[in-house]
Amino acid sequence: MSSTTTATDTTAATGARTDEAAALIGGARERIDALDDRIIGLIQERMAVSAVIQEARITSGGRRVNLSRETAVLSHYRDALGKPGTALAMTLLELCRGRV
Amino acid sequence: MSSTTTATDTTAATGARTDEAAALIGGARERIDALDDRIIGLIQERMAVSAVIQEARITSGGRRVNLSRETAVLSHYRDALGKPGTALAMTLLELCRGRV
Repeated sequence: MSSTTTATDTTAATGARTDEAAALIGGARERIDALDDRIIGLIQERMAVSAVIQEARITSGGRRVNLSRETAVLSHYRDALGKPGTALAMTLLELCRGRV
Repeated sequence: MSSTTTATDTTAATGARTDEAAALIGGARERIDALDDRIIGLIQERMAVSAVIQEARITSGGRRVNLSRETAVLSHYRDALGKPGTALAMTLLELCRGRV
């Protein structure tokens, strides 16, 4: 495969219209992939800690979910990320509630 | 305030029914708060890298969004976190598209 073909392929894969932009995007996507791996790892850690909390609360005779705490978490994400932060935190809380 | 009152307050705040569970939950919530701060920080970093990509692509004459790449990101989150992973990634992509 010639270098011209390779450059064209890269440009197509990144949606860029120049080789320079395609190269920049390729590198930045690697950074995004690394960030996503770290975000996913932290979410899985959050799910594990949340499971411990739920088990302790249920075992003590309480309920699985504590709504005032969930409201505080939603506010935390909204304050940091704006309106989509609320939607993101709602999905995160859904993930962390799990199915026990 | 007596120590009895304090223990009752803590129990109420955590939704636990015993002081032991309340203490465990209090500590675990601090871990969750620290995880949330790290998750939020990584998301903000992701938004910044994504903005660089979008600017490079648009400047080169391409489009802001690259749908095949977004599909790959959705799959990545779904593979790691199951069905709610897709919803979470959709919100994440919405956050990262921003309004330029």
